[in-house]
Amino acid sequence: MSDLQGPVVPTPDALSALRPLPADAVQLSATGLLGGWQARNAEATLPHCIDQLGVHGNLTNLRRVTGDADAEFAGMWFADTDVHKALEAAFWSGTASGFVDEVAALLEKAQDPDGYLDSFYQDPAHRDRQWTELHYSHEMYTAGHLIQAGVAAARSAPDDPSAQQVLSVARRFADLLVQRYGQSNEVDGHPEVETALAELYRVTGHRPYLELAARFVGNRGHGTLDDSRFGPRYFQDHEPLRESTEVTGHVVRMQYLLAGAVDVAVETGDRELLDVAERLWDSALESRTYITGGQGSRHRDEAFGDPYELPPDRAYAETCAAIGSFQLAWRLLLATGKVKYADEMERVLHNGIAGSTALSGKEFFYSNPLQLRTGHDGSHEDAPSQRLSWYSCACCPPNLARLMASLHAYLATGDADGLQLHLYSAGVVASGGHAVQMETNYPWDEQVTVTVSETSGSPWALSLRVPAWCNDVRLSINGASARAHVEAGYLRLHRVWHPGDRIVLTLAMPTRLVSAHPRVDATRGAVALVRGPLVYCLEQADVPAGVVLEDLSLDPHSPLAVAFHRAGPFPVTLQVPVRTSAVPDTGLYGAWPPPATTGPSAVVTAIPYFLWANRAAGPMRVWIPLSPSPR
Amino acid sequence: MSDLQGPVVPTPDALSALRPLPADAVQLSATGLLGGWQARNAEATLPHCIDQLGVHGNLTNLRRVTGDADAEFAGMWFADTDVHKALEAAFWSGTASGFVDEVAALLEKAQDPDGYLDSFYQDPAHRDRQWTELHYSHEMYTAGHLIQAGVAAARSAPDDPSAQQVLSVARRFADLLVQRYGQSNEVDGHPEVETALAELYRVTGHRPYLELAARFVGNRGHGTLDDSRFGPRYFQDHEPLRESTEVTGHVVRMQYLLAGAVDVAVETGDRELLDVAERLWDSALESRTYITGGQGSRHRDEAFGDPYELPPDRAYAETCAAIGSFQLAWRLLLATGKVKYADEMERVLHNGIAGSTALSGKEFFYSNPLQLRTGHDGSHEDAPSQRLSWYSCACCPPNLARLMASLHAYLATGDADGLQLHLYSAGVVASGGHAVQMETNYPWDEQVTVTVSETSGSPWALSLRVPAWCNDVRLSINGASARAHVEAGYLRLHRVWHPGDRIVLTLAMPTRLVSAHPRVDATRGAVALVRGPLVYCLEQADVPAGVVLEDLSLDPHSPLAVAFHRAGPFPVTLQVPVRTSAVPDTGLYGAWPPPATTGPSAVVTAIPYFLWANRAAGPMRVWIPLSPSPR
Repeated sequence: MSDLQGPVVPTPDALSALRPLPADAVQLSATGLLGGWQARNAEATLPHCIDQLGVHGNLTNLRRVTGDADAEFAGMWFADTDVHKALEAAFWSGTASGFVDEVAALLEKAQDPDGYLDSFYQDPAHRDRQWTELHYSHEMYTAGHLIQAGVAAARSAPDDPSAQQVLSVARRFADLLVQRYGQSNEVDGHPEVETALAELYRVTGHRPYLELAARFVGNRGHGTLDDSRFGPRYFQDHEPLRESTEVTGHVVRMQYLLAGAVDVAVETGDRELLDVAERLWDSALESRTYITGGQGSRHRDEAFGDPYELPPDRAYAETCAAIGSFQLAWRLLLATGKVKYADEMERVLHNGIAGSTALSGKEFFYSNPLQLRTGHDGSHEDAPSQRLSWYSCACCPPNLARLMASLHAYLATGDADGLQLHLYSAGVVASGGHAVQMETNYPWDEQVTVTVSETSGSPWALSLRVPAWCNDVRLSINGASARAHVEAGYLRLHRVWHPGDRIVLTLAMPTRLVSAHPRVDATRGAVALVRGPLVYCLEQADVPAGVVLEDLSLDPHSPLAVAFHRAGPFPVTLQVPVRTSAVPDTGLYGAWPPPATTGPSAVVTAIPYFLWANRAAGPMRVWIPLSPSPR
Repeated sequence: MSDLQGPVVPTPDALSALRPLPADAVQLSATGLLGGWQARNAEATLPHCIDQLGVHGNLTNLRRVTGDADAEFAGMWFADTDVHKALEAAFWSGTASGFVDEVAALLEKAQDPDGYLDSFYQDPAHRDRQWTELHYSHEMYTAGHLIQAGVAAARSAPDDPSAQQVLSVARRFADLLVQRYGQSNEVDGHPEVETALAELYRVTGHRPYLELAARFVGNRGHGTLDDSRFGPRYFQDHEPLRESTEVTGHVVRMQYLLAGAVDVAVETGDRELLDVAERLWDSALESRTYITGGQGSRHRDEAFGDPYELPPDRAYAETCAAIGSFQLAWRLLLATGKVKYADEMERVLHNGIAGSTALSGKEFFYSNPLQLRTGHDGSHEDAPSQRLSWYSCACCPPNLARLMASLHAYLATGDADGLQLHLYSAGVVASGGHAVQMETNYPWDEQVTVTVSETSGSPWALSLRVPAWCNDVRLSINGASARAHVEAGYLRLHRVWHPGDRIVLTLAMPTRLVSAHPRVDATRGAVALVRGPLVYCLEQADVPAGVVLEDLSLDPHSPLAVAFHRAGPFPVTLQVPVRTSAVPDTGLYGAWPPPATTGPSAVVTAIPYFLWANRAAGPMRVWIPLSPSPR
């Protein structure tokens, strides 16, 4: 077994139901959907991010500190984090070594003797503000991303000098934090350093990092942060996390805080804190999560919003929030082994996260709405009509790069019992003397074929997740159909395996009409179309000319067909029976019941949500109104 | 006829279908709803505002300029405007003379020799920024409110020395604007000065003020304003107003700009510009106005939002936007005589505006949502659970004060033909040798009794508006029923009138179930209850204990009763047949059709929307889901 590791590696003594596999245990095939994304990331997204860091001055900001540039400081005050995230992505990816070497040297040179490293607050004009405005400064958030780059360096390239350099820089900053905040009640306005410090402890075994992470988790919620204009809930400073029962405030901050809390909980054996994280996760899933897995209903403060407040058109659903949700679910899956976390990883990955990135891999959404209206003003960054190549706050693209570069690490786990496959895509999983090959065109196809390629002579269990959306699972082993006994969400196949043993898992994917809880006012009288893990949507490009997308309604009693395409950007589309409505002339408000306005029927194509906005900019909707019942 | 005048008095040569009456032509009775509001304003709201100006440092800011205070500058950089608006309110109200005298002297003393007056930019620390950041500074917006105070001074108390002092101060600032910007292409980020300058022209006859107003209307839309983070549409700088076909951006800015455009159009005889204003007003009413008359669907940038984007829960619907809508509609009514503008004045006044103020007259909403959810985080100013006594940006309360103080001026108009009554409330209307008394408990009662108390011997027309919501209007004159011939929205009764002639107008008010245009996704499958001009709502206080408001649905086929109350805060309530729903255990998303969950029936009370949040803070909703049809 290799020493290489991926993100989130609990120590052997941690609370942990499942163990992550070594970083090179899973090899995704670029012919599969996930492997395709990972390959695109290495070929397009990460190089694009590195390019943009040059264009937008992020690297120059650091060169100002070293005296090698004299331009104005450029971008957001936490612009360094985009560098750190791209660096982390480069380590996981094992590519872009020129960038890695350059940045490693630059960071080392820019770091202050005491370990401080933040090009905004090292600016002579801002230096006196260091550590004085934690509610706003993102200094520890920046440190956190630097530390995560250091962790990635250590786990992915332990023998590489540049990696060692980055780890050293990260440790020096972490040591400064320990020295400065080890006895403090203060906390940063933007969580992130908690999980980073816990991970650094895992890499180094240096316990003060873990203790500081635990301290920061506990420090939050005591009102020590200067009030923001959004109130203390914005950064979860309104009540101690342990007393919280519901997610609230800025979504990414909440997700990152919970990730740190889980890391601390499992490493310190703090089951109570782990319970808190599970409870809050449940609260998010019960009333504050879009059908895409996106979270965050409000643009104003990038916040969760009230329970059941889930407007499709004004979904904020930040890409980073979806990434945070995925990373949190992975931590909870490792800690508890509960399938619901893997189910959510699948949903948010295939919809909320995947939808953020253009087919080119070089354009991105920051917010991920579930509806774009006719007449939408998509002229600025907040809610653009199409993906943009970069943002003034460019947190999402390099965050995508680091996730996609490490995506293989989230596919499977191991335990004393054997291997667990949580996500399906073509590739190889090999660990602990066992190896299997996955052949599948999932989620376009229903079948996943798993072939044992390496095995010990002893019995072991191959566990295959059966998604919660699947009501009809079939199994065959070596050509003979077998009983598919699903226990706690997994098919656990325990036996002595032989090389060449072939398991075919069929997860039936009828198109489902889904409705939301009746308290979700924003989608009342509408359904979403879902096939397998994929949410579908209607896009203006597929609607007959002259028809306004908003005037289509779905006839739920007409048959709906699935179309498979060998070529083109949309491998599987749905053929949706709709009716068009004449626009009533009663104005904006009129007497109920409204006049019947249902017009001719038609069939329009629905495409996977994650592939929207890859043609001409235009209206889109996930939730489709139901045609009025005939009177 | 008196010389006293109210807001918006076009010159005799202006394009004007109707003429405002002198300011003292209408006397509202405090026993009527509108007169009660006006009395409450004089007794509670205006004194409260004056008090808060002291508490929050607005007056001290000006005393810093005169050297009479040395506190830190307090509040928003445009804090002076709250002083100016309260001063304007005091003039219209004819009360608070101590405040008037004090502020008049203070403003005169604080004014720079060249006429400049803005306590933020007169601060030595900011003085070098004067006129350098027009996209942000609100300097002309501040000047505009000062000028409007001067206009109110001149019209309401022409012989009062303090009033003369305020008019002089306002003119000096206006003269500075003419001198500085008379040949400029620049424009302020926040419209307001346009209408103020046009009104000052009307008061003074000094044409350069009108010319500058016209210039500013034309200057906007050429991209001269530094981009805000919300893009140029935010301040309507993306295209010239004359080329615009739809309202967009920050609602208050749009409303104030249109008010200025109408003033300029009617004074310069610019029918094309008037058409533009009408077209944009139509676009707002067609797809971007709440059923309360509120406008603004987005908290982030206080903006209109996309067409048909009208979420009840996240309605921004700023109080100032509703006031702006009312003031714009009045201008368009005067210019065109079209009843739709008076209809909208009635709607927004009785719902969107009235709902902003607590029964006490001392607490206010800034945003006016149409739904407040169970679990709402109402802990901060943006979307509080209850009205607050003041806001860090306190534009709304003094804006309410100035509107309510001048409310009588918006009731009726005159023309060569006679009198037109647009709004109904108990009071007297006397102008041009004609006088009528209105006796009514409208909108609680359906009947308005108009008695002629003074008349010439010649025939003249008394015109009574018949609201668009009314399908059943009855008329009697001196006890005999008469044919109610409604023409273009008015009953025009033309004859020789005699003192004591008694007209009884009955506007039938059956409770109406109203649904929104099918493109309004946010209220699909729900209805609003409307009686007369009043929108109703359900409030948690009226729901049986243990029942969650969100779980109620309305059975549209069960009878709905109206209850009249002699005492208590709610003169007329509705008794609404509802069903309770058990919460499905299918989670947030489940297969369509959802399981039937309709529970027992009940009858709950609905109260007028404008009276919500006068009891314990709790959930509220205007749009009530319809019970599922029995299968």
